[in-house]
Amino acid sequence: MSRVSVEKKVLSENDRIAAALREKFERNGTLCVNFISSPGSGKTALLERTLAGYDPSRRVAVLTGDIQTDNDARRLSRYGFPVRQITTGGACHLDGRMIERGLVDWQLEGLEILFIENVGNLVCPTSYDLGEEARVVLLSVTEGEDKPLKYPATFFRADLMLLNKIDLLPYVPFDAALGHENARRTNPEIEILNVSCTTGEGFDAWLRWLEARRAKRLRPQRVS
Amino acid sequence: MSRVSVEKKVLSENDRIAAALREKFERNGTLCVNFISSPGSGKTALLERTLAGYDPSRRVAVLTGDIQTDNDARRLSRYGFPVRQITTGGACHLDGRMIERGLVDWQLEGLEILFIENVGNLVCPTSYDLGEEARVVLLSVTEGEDKPLKYPATFFRADLMLLNKIDLLPYVPFDAALGHENARRTNPEIEILNVSCTTGEGFDAWLRWLEARRAKRLRPQRVS
Repeated sequence: MSRVSVEKKVLSENDRIAAALREKFERNGTLCVNFISSPGSGKTALLERTLAGYDPSRRVAVLTGDIQTDNDARRLSRYGFPVRQITTGGACHLDGRMIERGLVDWQLEGLEILFIENVGNLVCPTSYDLGEEARVVLLSVTEGEDKPLKYPATFFRADLMLLNKIDLLPYVPFDAALGHENARRTNPEIEILNVSCTTGEGFDAWLRWLEARRAKRLRPQRVS
Repeated sequence: MSRVSVEKKVLSENDRIAAALREKFERNGTLCVNFISSPGSGKTALLERTLAGYDPSRRVAVLTGDIQTDNDARRLSRYGFPVRQITTGGACHLDGRMIERGLVDWQLEGLEILFIENVGNLVCPTSYDLGEEARVVLLSVTEGEDKPLKYPATFFRADLMLLNKIDLLPYVPFDAALGHENARRTNPEIEILNVSCTTGEGFDAWLRWLEARRAKRLRPQRVS
């Protein structure tokens, strides 16, 4: 079997698992959000600030992926919500099977939001559907405006781009308008929000975006 | 054939090609340097400043890899040295075959340094030997000190870590000593230099490092 046909088989098996996960999330009214970015773009910091703002009575949970270490799970578990680390042991992305295993013995009924923090990698996670309802790509202003053009598949398949670390704009040669333009050239449908996990700028809009996606999920589908 | 055995076959074929490339570089006295980092860590900016400092009479060349666009080759070709873009069209890393093709019709005889800028990805390029004499990993201070622990294979296999963007240290919560410590925990042999492509800090040491590696390459091997 050639390399390409093995890859196709792996992806089609993953699609089958992702479809079952998606059906489960829908049944439970859970909004599942898959975060993809380069290493160090601020996925964990974004989740920290997001969880810190939630009332403890809310039902949200996190699966966080890394090749090695459980640093992120330790950082995120401080906020009182269920968090589980998925250590891939070398794999450069999360896949549906890892999510399935990560959810074992978790009560999904009534879970409002499941955040999945993918392995830091702007390429490979893109090909793996995790059954998510929304895919969010983070780009930080220290990385350069050209990233949507250089990694088009990742931006093309995302629902939302969070342009992160905007508090650093005065210190780096990053043109935010050009960053937006490049993302929209790659994906005209992409939504974009500017945020800073340091100052909290943009977090109101980000939290509203999440609630709107959740409301859309809960609204009964019209049957024609 | 299983996925793992296909991967093994691909890597062993790559090793064969890389060995032939290495032999060719050695024969021509060429120092080949493979740069690996996350997207946006500053590989292209580092090469721009490096090339800008070289006398035009020197014989250096660049192969630069990206999934899409020839932006980097256009940026780098301004300095008067041969530069060629390798567009992988989806692949998350460079491999030996791409380097072999990239070098077609280039005169290697007398080439002092060949810089290879890998696809921006802190995971996958690590597994692919390109026949290089030296492997350099860039970590920028905006990415967090934990990256060597989270991506251990990449730091373990590198000869040198360039801690980049140190001009931004006053604006980000990055502890440079801890960044060094984490790199050395992963790879006790790794050399480390702090650099800034904006201010030029650390460039003298970086250029000296390159010359020392080149001298080591040119020194005749003692036959016992």
